[in-house]
Amino acid sequence: MNAEIIAVGSEMLTPQRTDTNSLWLTAELNGLGIEVVAKIIVGDDRARLTETIADATRRSELVILTGGLGPTEDDLTRECVAGATHRQLQFSQPLLDDLLARFTRLGRAMAENNKRQAYLIEGAEALPNPNGSAPGQWLRLAPDRHIALLPGPPREMKPLYTAQVGPRLAALIPPQHIRVLTFRIAGMGESDVDSLVAPVYSQYKNPVTTILAKPGDVELDFRARCNTVEEADALLAEVGAKVEALLGERIYSRDGAPLEAATGALLRARKATLAVAESCTGGLLAERISSVPGSSEYFDGGFVVYSRGLKHALLGIPSEEIAGPLVYGEAAAKSLAEATRLRAGSHYAIAITGVAGPGPDEGFEPGHVVVAVASGAKTVARTLTLFGDRGRIRFMATQSALDLLRRTFLLPAL
Amino acid sequence: MNAEIIAVGSEMLTPQRTDTNSLWLTAELNGLGIEVVAKIIVGDDRARLTETIADATRRSELVILTGGLGPTEDDLTRECVAGATHRQLQFSQPLLDDLLARFTRLGRAMAENNKRQAYLIEGAEALPNPNGSAPGQWLRLAPDRHIALLPGPPREMKPLYTAQVGPRLAALIPPQHIRVLTFRIAGMGESDVDSLVAPVYSQYKNPVTTILAKPGDVELDFRARCNTVEEADALLAEVGAKVEALLGERIYSRDGAPLEAATGALLRARKATLAVAESCTGGLLAERISSVPGSSEYFDGGFVVYSRGLKHALLGIPSEEIAGPLVYGEAAAKSLAEATRLRAGSHYAIAITGVAGPGPDEGFEPGHVVVAVASGAKTVARTLTLFGDRGRIRFMATQSALDLLRRTFLLPAL
Repeated sequence: MNAEIIAVGSEMLTPQRTDTNSLWLTAELNGLGIEVVAKIIVGDDRARLTETIADATRRSELVILTGGLGPTEDDLTRECVAGATHRQLQFSQPLLDDLLARFTRLGRAMAENNKRQAYLIEGAEALPNPNGSAPGQWLRLAPDRHIALLPGPPREMKPLYTAQVGPRLAALIPPQHIRVLTFRIAGMGESDVDSLVAPVYSQYKNPVTTILAKPGDVELDFRARCNTVEEADALLAEVGAKVEALLGERIYSRDGAPLEAATGALLRARKATLAVAESCTGGLLAERISSVPGSSEYFDGGFVVYSRGLKHALLGIPSEEIAGPLVYGEAAAKSLAEATRLRAGSHYAIAITGVAGPGPDEGFEPGHVVVAVASGAKTVARTLTLFGDRGRIRFMATQSALDLLRRTFLLPAL
Repeated sequence: MNAEIIAVGSEMLTPQRTDTNSLWLTAELNGLGIEVVAKIIVGDDRARLTETIADATRRSELVILTGGLGPTEDDLTRECVAGATHRQLQFSQPLLDDLLARFTRLGRAMAENNKRQAYLIEGAEALPNPNGSAPGQWLRLAPDRHIALLPGPPREMKPLYTAQVGPRLAALIPPQHIRVLTFRIAGMGESDVDSLVAPVYSQYKNPVTTILAKPGDVELDFRARCNTVEEADALLAEVGAKVEALLGERIYSRDGAPLEAATGALLRARKATLAVAESCTGGLLAERISSVPGSSEYFDGGFVVYSRGLKHALLGIPSEEIAGPLVYGEAAAKSLAEATRLRAGSHYAIAITGVAGPGPDEGFEPGHVVVAVASGAKTVARTLTLFGDRGRIRFMATQSALDLLRRTFLLPAL
């Protein structure tokens, strides 16, 4: 079964807010094997909402609407669903009695306009809402076409869905299970990853493969849908093994954890500690490493040697080694890493130096970055040519530095 | 003019992610007087995307699509817009030449599938994308019907919209001048700011006032729309003066610049330099300060003293001063700031120590944070009780530290 979720409310069309109910609903629907194929936000406009509902019911087997069930003139969901499905709104005395009882229980008088909430779309079932005055509605248009109307506030919507809509959906569909396998890859572009693994994943309609790319970071998601968990897991294991054979150690995470957490886990497993020295990244590397809860187990800290003077003053790098363009060379990066390791008393140290921009320096364009890793046994350095703005260059530099450390563990010959 | 925004990509239909590009686009469109009447997220499915585009172009005068312009088989936006508008996709040699030149510039070989990005919808103009391989497209269906295709990554989408789409839209709508005045405020909650200034702004329908709140940071936007720039500026000056009288020095920025840039500008004006020592924020403060282009003029760098040992080893803080719970006290924070100032040879130093969580330490709950500023003449410290998760506590700690430095400049008696 496929579903569309329509969030109703002009406030969600402002620059400040968006619909978030649909994230929770998507997880619930996916759990039943229902795929969410579109999410729509539409304002409190009668004609437009009616048309949007009509389009969605034509396209999809299940349409879930959230919001617009309140008592005011702006609350149009009931009448627009009625309009889109060519049905009448019918007054329901039992619904009005429930409403009156609710207000009595709360010790408040019911406003006249709350009566709007006692109207039911012709043929719909009312779904009791213990947490608010707006009942939900469940409308069967055909054996394979359904519309659910849910209140907008999450504390009303979620319990109502769980108690009333989830069980109705479960009864409509053959039991299915969805399992997801995630690989994250550093140091390859999206299209390079795709050209490498497409020959594998394109052979499968199940699992469905999604590629997500961020600078220096590609995520592969494989989503299997089967009758049993075992079947789904077996399918993912089969595809996963083929993809792993192609990507090998470029996969840094098999559980969705970001590179700073994956590298941290390697340090923890070795009971090793790490310190850093950062020039052009100005603290971003330390920030990423220490953003992981529990990182104090393996992260000692380090130096932000933003000015040339500090590289000398804090780390004792001889001024002649970092004079002029030498400050952006591999020898300087290695010296920084080695001095950091010794001064911090850590097992490993990373150093980053380079030009983040916006302007060039010492004849180097923005994006010229050198990363180095010192382990005591040896020190390795890599010169990178990164592109993009200052923020992207800084992020890519930290990504490359973390990956160089990770590869130092995995490939001792590096 | 009314607009719909369609975000394309199956990854935004998962329980973990949603479209956020549309928030930025909505602010831009609203600024031109264009109302966003619906926002849609649709997956990488040919039939469904085509139908969604056809429905949106029927309903609305402007349709903006983001995403799905990449080089892979999954990237369907070009062909689906072509399908929905009954047009052909046409190969463009100039676009291919641009792509090849881009890859040459980056020193990389172009993958065969990048050629998909050299196809243009019949009648569309290509919109150059300096930040990525996917050009945008602008398609005029009728004098009052337009479709814009934009890349999905925000760092490509935003500059491309600003350079290419915004001006095209502005040319389509009656000339009005929109001017915006922005105040940013640190150290007050959203509702406190609102209760203080609402009596002023609620008297005006023009300018329109928007309040944006992030942790530790409130932004007030006043957007005046008038027939002339002078009229709009006069209106903003009138409202701005009344609001400034209420908020005073709590306004840290009058141009939208974030706190790290506003504080940096104060340092630059004084030809003063700054160093930092960070414990629980783990580099975030240095990262924020150094994220500002040109910050090397006033930022020297500093220390990430994540482990207790490094506070002693790198900064020479006597072990007994940071023993047990003392490490989270004002005396320790002051010592850290003073030692940092001396070791880095800077005019000013900031130190942060505290518990970011997730667990308590030394009897202090997460959110217990001390910030200190040393200026040579004196050293001040503040003990904070912050709430929220690890990321929020770390951000709030850096926000408070920057604001303490800013107030040291503004209020010499502090």
